[in-house]
Amino acid sequence: MTQINAYGAESQDSGVGPMLIDRRTLRPDDVAIEIDYCGICHTDIHFVQNDWGRTHYPVVPGHEIVGRVTAVGEQIKRFRPGDRVGVGCLVDSCRECSACEQGLEQYCAQGFTATYNGEDRIDGSVTCGGYSESIVVSERFVLRMPESLDAAASAPLLCAGITTWSPLQYFGVGPGHRVGVVGMGGLGHMAVKFARALGAEVTLFTRSEAKRAEAEKQGAHHVVISTDEAQMRAAANTFDFILDTVPVQHDLNPYIAALQHNGTHILVGLLEPIEPPLDAGAIVFRRRMLAGSLIGGLPETQEMLDFCAEHGIVCEIEMLDIGNINQAYERMRNSDVRYRFVIDMKTLRPAS
Amino acid sequence: MTQINAYGAESQDSGVGPMLIDRRTLRPDDVAIEIDYCGICHTDIHFVQNDWGRTHYPVVPGHEIVGRVTAVGEQIKRFRPGDRVGVGCLVDSCRECSACEQGLEQYCAQGFTATYNGEDRIDGSVTCGGYSESIVVSERFVLRMPESLDAAASAPLLCAGITTWSPLQYFGVGPGHRVGVVGMGGLGHMAVKFARALGAEVTLFTRSEAKRAEAEKQGAHHVVISTDEAQMRAAANTFDFILDTVPVQHDLNPYIAALQHNGTHILVGLLEPIEPPLDAGAIVFRRRMLAGSLIGGLPETQEMLDFCAEHGIVCEIEMLDIGNINQAYERMRNSDVRYRFVIDMKTLRPAS
Repeated sequence: MTQINAYGAESQDSGVGPMLIDRRTLRPDDVAIEIDYCGICHTDIHFVQNDWGRTHYPVVPGHEIVGRVTAVGEQIKRFRPGDRVGVGCLVDSCRECSACEQGLEQYCAQGFTATYNGEDRIDGSVTCGGYSESIVVSERFVLRMPESLDAAASAPLLCAGITTWSPLQYFGVGPGHRVGVVGMGGLGHMAVKFARALGAEVTLFTRSEAKRAEAEKQGAHHVVISTDEAQMRAAANTFDFILDTVPVQHDLNPYIAALQHNGTHILVGLLEPIEPPLDAGAIVFRRRMLAGSLIGGLPETQEMLDFCAEHGIVCEIEMLDIGNINQAYERMRNSDVRYRFVIDMKTLRPAS
Repeated sequence: MTQINAYGAESQDSGVGPMLIDRRTLRPDDVAIEIDYCGICHTDIHFVQNDWGRTHYPVVPGHEIVGRVTAVGEQIKRFRPGDRVGVGCLVDSCRECSACEQGLEQYCAQGFTATYNGEDRIDGSVTCGGYSESIVVSERFVLRMPESLDAAASAPLLCAGITTWSPLQYFGVGPGHRVGVVGMGGLGHMAVKFARALGAEVTLFTRSEAKRAEAEKQGAHHVVISTDEAQMRAAANTFDFILDTVPVQHDLNPYIAALQHNGTHILVGLLEPIEPPLDAGAIVFRRRMLAGSLIGGLPETQEMLDFCAEHGIVCEIEMLDIGNINQAYERMRNSDVRYRFVIDMKTLRPAS
């Protein structure tokens, strides 16, 4: 066991501050990683505030982790010290169920082990995330980060990126498809980039005319103002897929109406009972679908990273010293970030 | 124009009784059919009662029609007088949109022309259905009925059959799949037969233990009593597809929970806003899908009929004299039919 520096929340009201945590001694299949960058996800805020009522304090958030291998367990052949690697939202799963066998560890029948606030499957300890100097993770859950990508800007690929990539791949989005993206935040801007790179015709749905130029810069061919009924009516029956990144309640029915027959509306943000209610008639009468998708499995995450290297895709980020993290959270609560904060972990390590 | 005998409703309160209607003179692409049998669908009752507020009276229902060709228009090569043919829910569509080009006329972008209470695309008249001596239909919308199938028992294949067949085919249901069927009525019993014949492992969800023996007779491997929470809990995370034939409000969430990751719940009956609300979290966390499906296109209807001939599949029916139709409606309102009434149209024609 090694004691290291980290940032975390002691309680629901404490905010995030410095603390010491333990990292385990390497198991035979473990990789030890010195963390260089960690992205900030909205989920981090939810856990710090205990919004979902299942936070184990102290909690050390962070699941968009990029660093360098410093040591490997005796069984490890795939990584060597010095390799640039990444860790996303998952650090373990049962590895035996049909989902795990399909490389869809995020749908593990027994539940995956989250990178933070999870329970280690071997020693029962609570997992601590990437707001820390280093992390120890089982090889299967470690990604190879392409050296050609900017290390900081690729960190959010490990959550915001894969969450939008996975459904686009699963549903086979490509040339000839009309794809809508709802919301232009950390996830939405990645969805626009990916859908464009995959060859689709991309439309951003947004409430704000102010986002038009930015959406086009990220790759959107068209922008539809979702609060403009005439624009929404004109968009009816036109989309093959709509990727909906909005994590709060919103009326899905106007988007369902925008789907062609056989079209699919994909939720990656909303987790609540759907209100106002979804109109079943609009689903039945044109064979439309409502789907959901959660993060992504390890094999598809590696595929995404390799695709990003090939196409030069990274996230739009704003770099941050870890001492400013509470201000960053406040700005995120006000949607004041384009599009992802990434913590420079040098600012955590004591000057040597 | 020819005047013929029919049964229909004069008004919302009239019930169904005898009337005279006109059938058009054959157009070059028309087929004239003497009707032998016509199934009764719940939709017929809805239109007779004007439940959906869009009935044009007088209305002559009936869209599960089997008969013999009596004459053909000058362009017709595919049918000859004497052929056994069928007509389902559709008698026309725009024939030009992407859906029509894909043989999915039911999803016609301009709306299909319904077999009754529709508006003829050429002369603007209101279409009259199969509770009548004869019908005239454009060739594209006429099906070839296999002579090896019982003519009366195959009539409901044209609505109840194709409505369940189409989604099973579209979603590729076959060997190795666990398929649930919700509801054991006209549609549900066909869904059980088809899913079984396609090689799936079939479970009927029903509220009533009394339906177990009947479900097994129709081909179900298992029965789950949907009102028994312990049985529903035991069924969690097990199904690849659930075909939901229930046309009235019911809680979808227990069925969504019964789907495996990647599983799909398919609505073919419910047409209202979904209450209680669908839980988006259960959709997202296991990449489940909610889909809808409407009847079927002409090519897939013919494929279904040929499949039925190959596998000896027909509907379970109760034959009826047309004079008893109002009693039949009353029994259907009380779910007192196994599983479809079919009118013997000889009882309409005056004894010669």
